[in-house]
Amino acid sequence: MGKKVGKQTFVIDTQPAIINTATVVGPFEGKGPLKEYFDHIYTDNLAGELSFEKAEKEMMLNACFTALTKAGKTPQEIDLFLAGDLLNQIITSGFSALELTIPFLGLYGACSTSAEGLAIASMIIESGCASNILVATSSHNSSAERQYRYPTEYGSHKKPFSQRTVTGAGAAIVSKEGNGPKITHVTIGKVEDLACKDPLNLGAAMAPAAASTLVQHFADTGRGPEYYDLIVSGDLGKFGHQLAIELAISQGGFDLSKNFKDCGLMLYDLEKQDVHAGASGCASSAVVTYGYLYKKLLDGTYKRLLLTATGALHSPISCQQGENIPSIAHSVSIEMI
Amino acid sequence: MGKKVGKQTFVIDTQPAIINTATVVGPFEGKGPLKEYFDHIYTDNLAGELSFEKAEKEMMLNACFTALTKAGKTPQEIDLFLAGDLLNQIITSGFSALELTIPFLGLYGACSTSAEGLAIASMIIESGCASNILVATSSHNSSAERQYRYPTEYGSHKKPFSQRTVTGAGAAIVSKEGNGPKITHVTIGKVEDLACKDPLNLGAAMAPAAASTLVQHFADTGRGPEYYDLIVSGDLGKFGHQLAIELAISQGGFDLSKNFKDCGLMLYDLEKQDVHAGASGCASSAVVTYGYLYKKLLDGTYKRLLLTATGALHSPISCQQGENIPSIAHSVSIEMI
Repeated sequence: MGKKVGKQTFVIDTQPAIINTATVVGPFEGKGPLKEYFDHIYTDNLAGELSFEKAEKEMMLNACFTALTKAGKTPQEIDLFLAGDLLNQIITSGFSALELTIPFLGLYGACSTSAEGLAIASMIIESGCASNILVATSSHNSSAERQYRYPTEYGSHKKPFSQRTVTGAGAAIVSKEGNGPKITHVTIGKVEDLACKDPLNLGAAMAPAAASTLVQHFADTGRGPEYYDLIVSGDLGKFGHQLAIELAISQGGFDLSKNFKDCGLMLYDLEKQDVHAGASGCASSAVVTYGYLYKKLLDGTYKRLLLTATGALHSPISCQQGENIPSIAHSVSIEMI
Repeated sequence: MGKKVGKQTFVIDTQPAIINTATVVGPFEGKGPLKEYFDHIYTDNLAGELSFEKAEKEMMLNACFTALTKAGKTPQEIDLFLAGDLLNQIITSGFSALELTIPFLGLYGACSTSAEGLAIASMIIESGCASNILVATSSHNSSAERQYRYPTEYGSHKKPFSQRTVTGAGAAIVSKEGNGPKITHVTIGKVEDLACKDPLNLGAAMAPAAASTLVQHFADTGRGPEYYDLIVSGDLGKFGHQLAIELAISQGGFDLSKNFKDCGLMLYDLEKQDVHAGASGCASSAVVTYGYLYKKLLDGTYKRLLLTATGALHSPISCQQGENIPSIAHSVSIEMI
């Protein structure tokens, strides 16, 4: 039986396992330092499709079907499909669900979707209702840039603190039974707002949410940062990551400096690839966690991982109307037990 | 302990209660036949705000705080806030969550969001993780029309099968303990597509999903339509509702003609209010179910209600790219026990 501890953390007593994962990325991501950890690297951004939106759907479906194949499961053996993405009306997820023919629950948590999906999946498995849940998320550089900022064809210049939206998708199967890293705790974030208004500086907008959820996770569980071999944020980038470290000290007295990394700083080679402050997008945390970190949990490099994926909850319209960019972060404890 | 029965239905063993609800609507909805059942009727569409988007947020917050007040609960007593809406990046829900300061999980199920929220809330309560969950959804005629079709200021003409997006919001509190109608079963829908391409004819696009989920609910539970005093769809409208009745017969042999209504046909006076085929939008099922039907459950008019909210999962971009409009429906059994 699950239970709540403290204010925002839920103990997943049955400790469901992430029995398998799959990740696919675009050609640019396939040139980064983690390239050997992905299941498929596309040779072109359109993935053989006629639009970036269709390419993104192809990527999510490829990740989902690859995860199913690796786990030896058919769609009929999966009880629920939980997915979300960055596109308006999460069309990548909805259209993927149509082809997967698995009962579907659509999520929107922006770039926190990977953690939101794992959190809801583990609570639903804890309820006894479902035994196998497929979670997925995706982003595509060109579909996201067009929707949130400018079409990539314009070649607009970026500011130094801007981040590159990842082209790729990640899927994971969370199961009541089976081997793999276990989900033991989830901390659901509150929406935070430190008055950032710049949609080109999302690391700064999301850092307060990461710090808030991490500080609350430690307070709720009695665990300090040192309990984990690795704490990763999803896509804070160079400046947001540093800001989160400072906020965790000032707001909770927790020193993250020793074992806190950011998926957005791991995916690209920041020296050689021109990505400014790092990676962003739903796929940032998904491909790094389900690709690289999942394998590092399995090979024993890490035993206790705290994924803290952050999302900026703005829209182009809310920015045009002068609103701040609120953000959220959810934490999921993933442990080899 | 919850369990799965059949292919898509989950039994919520602990039967959480909907301990209270609140609904608010715009001025046009306040002229309809259900006006006496709403907690607040706004006298103008802007609800005192400077934009339709801000008005929609004001409405969702008003519904949420009213539900909390009626239930005698503070935000601090609520474990999770589950919400979604029609706007890009569900900004109504995200910005409401910021003010509510309750841990937030964002959902996107288009007009199926009311049922999606109740379904996930009841499974999370079943897990033991949470005791009190606030669910909410909203839509606003002017913010939705501008985003999906044309700004209302253009005065564009509508086709006879078009529906009017409801201005309003509904909130409900689902609790482990307490009095009120109980959630006993949820059936999570698959995405369906019968090749409708017209975003002005969403009733036709969504009818296959309603029929599919209802037929599966009956097959999974062994209950026939006659088990329920009332089965309601969310916003199929005049033509979609009729189509769903025909599909339920042809696909499952189930006769819905006796006790199947549509919230989209109950909210407005179709003779006197010029709304073509009826109401649509996330708020359609939410304000009718949480406003009118909730009170009819409490006063004994109905004992067994099956809410089946449908959502069209298109975006303007997917329509422009020539895609069909896929749709989904989720069913929630709400029973006085």
